Amino acid sequence: MKEEKLGKFEYIFNPRTVAVIGASDSDGFSQALMGTKLRDSLFLVNPKYKELHGKRCYASILDIEDGIDYAVIAVPALLVPRVLVECIEKGVKAVHVFTAGFSETGAEERKILEDEVRKIARGKVSLIGPNCMGICCPKSGLSFIPDVLTEEGPVGVISQSGTFAEQFLSIGKLRNVKFSKVISYGNAIGLDCPDFLEYLAHDSETEVIALYMEGTKNGKRLKAAMTEAAELKPVLALKGGVTEHGRRAASSHTGSLAGSPEIWSSLFRQAGVIQVEDFDELLDTTLALSCVPLPSGKGTAIITNSGGFSVLETDLCVKAGLEVPQFTKETIAELRKMVPLAGTSINNPLDAWPIFYNMPGTTGTLADAIKTLSHDKNIHSIVLHFDEVRYLRHVLGEATENFLKELVKIMVQGCRYARDEMGKTIMICVSLDAYSEDEVDRRYHLLAKKAFESEQFPVYPALGASIKALSNLYRYKAQYRNS
Amino acid sequence: MKEEKLGKFEYIFNPRTVAVIGASDSDGFSQALMGTKLRDSLFLVNPKYKELHGKRCYASILDIEDGIDYAVIAVPALLVPRVLVECIEKGVKAVHVFTAGFSETGAEERKILEDEVRKIARGKVSLIGPNCMGICCPKSGLSFIPDVLTEEGPVGVISQSGTFAEQFLSIGKLRNVKFSKVISYGNAIGLDCPDFLEYLAHDSETEVIALYMEGTKNGKRLKAAMTEAAELKPVLALKGGVTEHGRRAASSHTGSLAGSPEIWSSLFRQAGVIQVEDFDELLDTTLALSCVPLPSGKGTAIITNSGGFSVLETDLCVKAGLEVPQFTKETIAELRKMVPLAGTSINNPLDAWPIFYNMPGTTGTLADAIKTLSHDKNIHSIVLHFDEVRYLRHVLGEATENFLKELVKIMVQGCRYARDEMGKTIMICVSLDAYSEDEVDRRYHLLAKKAFESEQFPVYPALGASIKALSNLYRYKAQYRNS
Repeated sequence: MKEEKLGKFEYIFNPRTVAVIGASDSDGFSQALMGTKLRDSLFLVNPKYKELHGKRCYASILDIEDGIDYAVIAVPALLVPRVLVECIEKGVKAVHVFTAGFSETGAEERKILEDEVRKIARGKVSLIGPNCMGICCPKSGLSFIPDVLTEEGPVGVISQSGTFAEQFLSIGKLRNVKFSKVISYGNAIGLDCPDFLEYLAHDSETEVIALYMEGTKNGKRLKAAMTEAAELKPVLALKGGVTEHGRRAASSHTGSLAGSPEIWSSLFRQAGVIQVEDFDELLDTTLALSCVPLPSGKGTAIITNSGGFSVLETDLCVKAGLEVPQFTKETIAELRKMVPLAGTSINNPLDAWPIFYNMPGTTGTLADAIKTLSHDKNIHSIVLHFDEVRYLRHVLGEATENFLKELVKIMVQGCRYARDEMGKTIMICVSLDAYSEDEVDRRYHLLAKKAFESEQFPVYPALGASIKALSNLYRYKAQYRNS
Repeated sequence: MKEEKLGKFEYIFNPRTVAVIGASDSDGFSQALMGTKLRDSLFLVNPKYKELHGKRCYASILDIEDGIDYAVIAVPALLVPRVLVECIEKGVKAVHVFTAGFSETGAEERKILEDEVRKIARGKVSLIGPNCMGICCPKSGLSFIPDVLTEEGPVGVISQSGTFAEQFLSIGKLRNVKFSKVISYGNAIGLDCPDFLEYLAHDSETEVIALYMEGTKNGKRLKAAMTEAAELKPVLALKGGVTEHGRRAASSHTGSLAGSPEIWSSLFRQAGVIQVEDFDELLDTTLALSCVPLPSGKGTAIITNSGGFSVLETDLCVKAGLEVPQFTKETIAELRKMVPLAGTSINNPLDAWPIFYNMPGTTGTLADAIKTLSHDKNIHSIVLHFDEVRYLRHVLGEATENFLKELVKIMVQGCRYARDEMGKTIMICVSLDAYSEDEVDRRYHLLAKKAFESEQFPVYPALGASIKALSNLYRYKAQYRNS
C-alpha cells in the first residue's frame, strides 16, 4: 500500500515526461517548463498549432509517440472530460487540471461537470485540481510560472489557492527560501491536502511544511495527517476564512466549507501545528525554521544602531511573548572594552553604533560583540538590526562599498559563531523600504542581505517581521518541542 | 502672552538667519542647510576652519556681523555651556542643542552639566534639546539631514527620539507624506512636547499631528495640550517603552520616566488621541489622515485580482474591526454587465481581474466599477489592491508600459470620483516587495504608485498596512468624531 503510494507520487513530482494540453504561445505552463530541465521531455498539445516554442505541437495527446507520466490540462472547462478520457487512454499517470469554472462558481451545472471529471479519473489516474496551479519541484524541473524555480531546499508548501502558491514561490525566492515541493491543489476532487501532507511528512527532502487552506472535506483525515507530519517536522498553517465575511469569500472561491475559527485553532493546536495569521508571517517563519536552530528560551538580545528605535524594538519583542533581559555583569564588562566611551549605554538592546566602526585589530569588532552576547546565559536568540547604510555613506562617501563589504564579513563571522558553535537563534534585519528609489542605497542593502543569505541566515526587510518569526520559533519550541 | 509665544515660535520655525556652531566638512546640519533656501542665510562656526562649504567659517558666533535668529550647537558636551553663553550674548533667539552626553547617560556629573545648561538658557533663549535633531520646516528650509525636505504639507511631527524623527521624514518622503514641521526635542530641558503641541494645535499649516514619546515630566500639562490639540485636529501617538523591558530601554535612552502602559492608554483615550502600536502604523495612518476623508462606517469594499488573496484580505479587514459586506443587488447587477462571464464571482471582495482589461469604449472599465461601488449604500471605504503587473507583462510584453499608463489613469479617475464626489475613503495598495530586484517590475509598480500619489491618494506597498491605517481612521471617526 505504502509502496504503491510512493510510486504514485514519484510520477507527480519527478515525471520523466510532461505534456501540456491546451498549450499556446502565451500559456504560463509551457513557458515555465521550457525554462527548466524538463524542456526536452516536454510535449505540447493543441490542435490549433503545428509548432510552438520551436517544438512540434500535437493535435491530441494520443498522437504523441512517447509515454507521458504527467499531463497539465489547460483547456476550457467543457472540454476537460474529453481530454481527461484521452489522457487515461494514453496511460498518463498523473493529471493536473488547471482549468477553473467548476464547483467554485456555485453554478449547479458546473458542479455536475466537476462530478463527471471526478468519476472519469477515479481509480484510473492521480488527479490534481481542478482550479489550481499544480506542482513545482526544483529537483525535477516541474514548474507553473516562468523564472521562479529556486535551488532545491527544505521547504514544502501545500496551498489550496493557486495565487497563494505563486506568491509564496515568488516572494520566497526573493527571501532565499528554498523549496522541495510546492503544491497548489484547488478543488481537490482527486488528491487532497491530507494526501500531500502524508507524502511530505515522509519525504526526506522536506524539512519544514507550510500549509494554506480555506476548508476541508474531511476534518478527521486532515487532523490525522497533520498530527503525523507535525511529529516528524515543523508544520505551519494559515487558515483563510477565519472571519464570517472571510468564510463567505472562501466559499465563493473554492466552494469548501470553512468551519468556525475556534474549531480550526483547536485542530491545529491538537495536531501540533503552528498557526499563523497572514501570508508574511507564514513566509517569514518558514524561512527562519529552514535555517536557524530553535531558541532554547525567551531571552533575546537586540543589536541595533539607534537608541530611539531600540525602545520600540524592545516593546515589539515583549509584546510578541519574548524577553529582552539585561546582560550579565561579565557580558557588560566585556562589551565595555569595545565601546569607546559614554553616550552609548551598554545595555540590551545594544546600541552598538560605535562598534560598527571597530575594524579588525582594534579593541573589539562587531564579531567580538556578537560572540560575547552568545556566551551570555540570559541570551537565547540574537536579533541583529542593520540600518547603518545611510550613516556609512554620509561618513565614508565613495569608500562605503569596500568598508561595507568588510563590515558584513565581520558580522557574518560573529553570527556563524553564535549559531554554529553556541546554538543560538540568529535573526537578521536589513531595513529596506519597498518604495525606496535610491539605487545606490538599495544596492548596498542588498549586498548586506546577500552576504548573510550566503551563509543561510534568515534576513528580513522589517524588524517587526523578524521578531514575529522569532516569537513563532519560540512558541513552537515551548509548546511542542519541550518534551 | 499668546502674542509673545507665537513670536518665539516664528524664530524657531522660520528664522531669518541660522548659525551652525561646531560645523565641519562632514556635519549633517551644514550639509542639510546648504541644500535648502537657507543656504544664503547660513553662518558656520568652528575655530578649526577658515572656510567650509565655500563659505567663511567663524571662530565664534560673536564674530558674525549679522544678527542670528537660530543656532544649532553641535560641539562636545563639555563645551556646550560656554557656547550657549556666547549665543545669548549674541542675542540668538532660539538654540537647538544637538550634542548628546547629558542626563540620558545616567552619569551624575552629566546630569549636573545638563542642569547648568538649563540654568544658563532659562528666560534668556528658547532651547530645544539637548540630545536631539531639532527642527525641519520645508517652508523656511530648516533641516537636519540632507535631501529629506519634502514639499510643504499638512503633517506635523513631534518626536522625543532623533532617529525616529529622521526615519519618519525619510520613509515619509518615500510615501508622499508632506510635512509642515518636524520636531525632535530630546531631553527637553527647555521646550518640551506640550509646548510644541500647543503650537501645532493652532498652526494653520498643520492639519494632522503625529507624536512619538517615551515619557513625560508633566503628565497633567501633556494631557491638557493633547486634549486641546485633539479638539482641533487629529492627533496620533506612539508611546515607546510600554513594556517593562521597553521602559528600561527608554530610561537609558532619554532618562525620562515612562509610566504604566494602562496609564498611557487611558491618557490618550481621555485626550481624544489615536494611539498606535508601531512606527509603520503611525506613518501609514498619518498618511491616510492627510489625504482622504474619514469613513462614515465600517463597510469596506475590496477590489483585487486574486481569489486566493481576497479571502485573507477579508479576514484582515474583519480582524481590524471593519466589515466586508455583500454588495446590494443593484450593485451586483451593474457589475455583472462589466464582467464577461462565469469563473469570476461578483462579490465583495471583488475579484476584478477581467475588468482590469476592459478599456474605454467597452462594457465597463475599472473606473465604472469603482463608481458603481461608491454608490452602494453598504460601502463606506474602498481598498484597491493593484498587483497585476506580473500578469500584464506576461500577456502584453513590451506593450505593458503603455497599457499600464492607460489603466492607471482609469483607476485614478474612478478613485477621484469615489473620493471627491461621493466622499468615500480610498486606500490604495500597490504591492511591492522590499527586496525585489526586477528593475522593470519595480519601475512599473512605482509608475502606478506615483500616478495615485499625484492625485493625493494614500499608497501602501503591503495590503495589511493599508487595512490597518483604514481601521484607525474608522476608529478615530467612531470614537472621537461622531458627535
